[in-house]
Amino acid sequence: MKKSLVLMILLFTTIIFAQQQKVEKWDIYEAEFNGPDYGNPFVGITLSAEFHHSDSTHAVYEPEGFYDGEGIFKIRFMPDLEGEWTFKTHSNKKELDGLTGEFTCIAPKSDSHGPVVVRNKYHFAYADGKPYFPFGTTCYQWCFESPELQNQTLETLKNSPFNKVRFLVLPNYTEDYVEGPRAIKEFPFEGEPENKWDFSRFNTTFFKAFEKNVERLRELGIEADVILFRPYDNGKFGFDTMDRETNDRYLRYVIARLGAYSNVWWSLANENSFIRHLTAEDWDHYFKVVRDKDPYHHLRSIHNAGDLYDYTKPWVTHVSLQYYNVVRNFGVCMVVRDIYGKPLVNDEINYEGNIASRWGQLSGEEMTRRFWIAYIGGSYATHGEAIEHESKIDWISEGGVLRGTSAERIGFLREIVESGPQEGLQPLDHYYLLNAAGKYGEYYLYYFAEHTPEEWEFKLPDEGLENGMKFKAELIDTWNMTITPINKVYTVEMLNRYNYIDKDHSVIKFPKKPYMALRLTRIQE
Amino acid sequence: MKKSLVLMILLFTTIIFAQQQKVEKWDIYEAEFNGPDYGNPFVGITLSAEFHHSDSTHAVYEPEGFYDGEGIFKIRFMPDLEGEWTFKTHSNKKELDGLTGEFTCIAPKSDSHGPVVVRNKYHFAYADGKPYFPFGTTCYQWCFESPELQNQTLETLKNSPFNKVRFLVLPNYTEDYVEGPRAIKEFPFEGEPENKWDFSRFNTTFFKAFEKNVERLRELGIEADVILFRPYDNGKFGFDTMDRETNDRYLRYVIARLGAYSNVWWSLANENSFIRHLTAEDWDHYFKVVRDKDPYHHLRSIHNAGDLYDYTKPWVTHVSLQYYNVVRNFGVCMVVRDIYGKPLVNDEINYEGNIASRWGQLSGEEMTRRFWIAYIGGSYATHGEAIEHESKIDWISEGGVLRGTSAERIGFLREIVESGPQEGLQPLDHYYLLNAAGKYGEYYLYYFAEHTPEEWEFKLPDEGLENGMKFKAELIDTWNMTITPINKVYTVEMLNRYNYIDKDHSVIKFPKKPYMALRLTRIQE
Repeated sequence: MKKSLVLMILLFTTIIFAQQQKVEKWDIYEAEFNGPDYGNPFVGITLSAEFHHSDSTHAVYEPEGFYDGEGIFKIRFMPDLEGEWTFKTHSNKKELDGLTGEFTCIAPKSDSHGPVVVRNKYHFAYADGKPYFPFGTTCYQWCFESPELQNQTLETLKNSPFNKVRFLVLPNYTEDYVEGPRAIKEFPFEGEPENKWDFSRFNTTFFKAFEKNVERLRELGIEADVILFRPYDNGKFGFDTMDRETNDRYLRYVIARLGAYSNVWWSLANENSFIRHLTAEDWDHYFKVVRDKDPYHHLRSIHNAGDLYDYTKPWVTHVSLQYYNVVRNFGVCMVVRDIYGKPLVNDEINYEGNIASRWGQLSGEEMTRRFWIAYIGGSYATHGEAIEHESKIDWISEGGVLRGTSAERIGFLREIVESGPQEGLQPLDHYYLLNAAGKYGEYYLYYFAEHTPEEWEFKLPDEGLENGMKFKAELIDTWNMTITPINKVYTVEMLNRYNYIDKDHSVIKFPKKPYMALRLTRIQE
Repeated sequence: MKKSLVLMILLFTTIIFAQQQKVEKWDIYEAEFNGPDYGNPFVGITLSAEFHHSDSTHAVYEPEGFYDGEGIFKIRFMPDLEGEWTFKTHSNKKELDGLTGEFTCIAPKSDSHGPVVVRNKYHFAYADGKPYFPFGTTCYQWCFESPELQNQTLETLKNSPFNKVRFLVLPNYTEDYVEGPRAIKEFPFEGEPENKWDFSRFNTTFFKAFEKNVERLRELGIEADVILFRPYDNGKFGFDTMDRETNDRYLRYVIARLGAYSNVWWSLANENSFIRHLTAEDWDHYFKVVRDKDPYHHLRSIHNAGDLYDYTKPWVTHVSLQYYNVVRNFGVCMVVRDIYGKPLVNDEINYEGNIASRWGQLSGEEMTRRFWIAYIGGSYATHGEAIEHESKIDWISEGGVLRGTSAERIGFLREIVESGPQEGLQPLDHYYLLNAAGKYGEYYLYYFAEHTPEEWEFKLPDEGLENGMKFKAELIDTWNMTITPINKVYTVEMLNRYNYIDKDHSVIKFPKKPYMALRLTRIQE
């Protein structure tokens, strides 16, 4: 009797609370319930809620809830349509079952565009249609560092050209994380390092801080490429040798907590093949868990090392590749794109740096060059820095500040890409013209990499051109970040079955410098 | 009564005949039966035979038979084990059902090694274990040319370095094949050009000649990469717009006739995506027909244009690729190999030639260079020539004679490859050393392509090496086809975590010429 009274009051309160609430589109509605706090509430209690829009033709979502400690259960929901929403819970616990609520979804703020989805086969856009061109960076462990360092990392990201960051949920093993000033205070599981974990209990303090970081990234307009599993454990923490039941529970918990953040991407693993005991079939299984439990279908991929997971599988939304050769030379990105038929994000192309490991020895010039080759190839890339410094704080590991020379140039490239074709750069010819991308008849971006041409004969592939079309040209110095307009209007005429040239047979003079590009834009009359 | 007497005599004759017969392993046993010659014997009559070896643990094969005209039905079988074989037919026609026979399989001739299969994941071998390194060429239409030209083509192939040839079963359309001196006399179907075909009746005269050519190739030790479908019809012959029932019947007929030839490979199509109305699902279906009807599981692939068929599918044995960028630069073949996990045969890398179409404009040097890049990348390649000549006979189309400069150099490469590691060349480092292949600790082949190094610092990747191992070195001029031994023994010692060098810190002097290679071979003490 007393129990059901409490329940009634709770339900009433919840409804009152929900009725008052207004939630922006793509922001998070959160319902909170009291539930059992005895035993282990992380295990064996099912909780989800069906969210219905008042327009009954709209999709119904059923996110799972999660236990947040101290008898509190939460369900988070990201509404994707303005108007009235209602929900009703399902649970195997009576006190959590059949609870209802409602809220109003209002227009998003002008800088909120929703989750990123695949668009135009090889490219991305936000849910509201605004193009999203990934310019990623990498700070694997930033969420395990001190609050001061985390703040610095966010400040750096805010002022950087990067709009996506790859990072870990499960800390990698290092002695510094066990003892000493950098020792991690909050781990994802209850227990203590090195390996005394209760894998059946999540540490809500850890997750509250972690999701706060995801939220802070969202406020900065940065996508959180959340890496769910990783190797690098050497059997110490044991986070890479958890059993399937634990892994499944962990995935569901992470999705229940983070899924409603519009800026989340799921990276099933970093360097997955280094987790030797997990097979392609295991990854299939985990992909399916993520696909089935995330009602919003955030982007899903997996980041390889050595053996490649089969990215053609239907639950993979894009290719998160580590294969440096793909961005070393022109013409390879399109091979990989054509094989997979999905967007290609070169999420590891070696790092700008000077460390002893050869994966961290790129010059800023070479990092920038690889970025350009990726984008000219109709794909995307991710930056990282491994630059030795007395602070022993490395951007790719701990975050902090950027010290390299490539980030600024990547920002310059981003400006060029974002002001180019909104559907994404399209390689213009997969077989015979490998250093140019754009949009037929409208926009041509040539990149000359390390070559130092003295001149460029005005010649464009035929597709989309007609005699008499007019173009302007700009010389771009991708290293010194200058754009120099050429004071001439070019008028094309057909040369042969493959090409058009300028009617004056123009040749564009180049400074004999590396890392030059050329932008040709149609002049609409 | 009379009918069953005929049947008895026929059966008796067959058995007698079979008992007398000795068939070499991997050669063809052919059983011949009289059957109905009324109506259309090509349609609606099922015929197959189970072949059992006296060792009952050996695989049972059930090839389909085919109608060969004039009331004669045949079943061909390629035995793969010496000893006694028996067979029994299955048919929906009483007079063809339950017929039995036997023959003895004897040892093959010393130059007969059986069908080629995938071995060592990315490589090939004959059924008897002898390595097979594909060095292909292309003569699409040679089987539709005059007997004199066919003989010349075979003579050329005999004296060439090539051990695989790609060619069509269904002629492409050209006016010359309809009227005039080159008009095709025998087409695969009964009827007449341009498009008055009875697709339900095969022209046995055509197929007898076609399979004779496959046999002649087999005698020369050349694999027949038989292309089953092709575009290039422009609606004229209509061979690329046959319906599924016709295509299925055609495939089964071709497999019944040709499957027993040990040297057959099945190429489902040339430039398959140019057959616009056939989808990936259609190709899946045709692949499955070939897989299910060919008891010997000859190699199966499909050759792309533009859109790529998904070569990860389980019925694809190897990748038959047209993507020139893969062999333009180092480091790309391994990307494609790693993606597919199957042997990569770059079956079209542009052609050596001087024609107006840009796919036929490679210099001999560039064709040779692309071959080397393919093999150094752990993959294989296929040659072709499109060289304008007054005869209007082009090697890639009609056959005839070779006029280019690459074939001889490809032969030189073949000698090097065949005398190298018998498991096939293994790229030594997929990420940081892209121009070398071999076998760790044993054999290293470096190729310098268009570069003209003055010297090469003796430095090898660490895997498989130990201090004190000794190596000899040879300079190879891949264009002038010379091999120059260097009069020194190199003894390796560890330099760092990645490399070994020669203990004397040796540098090998190079002539400043392009297209050089270096071969290092371990000296066993």
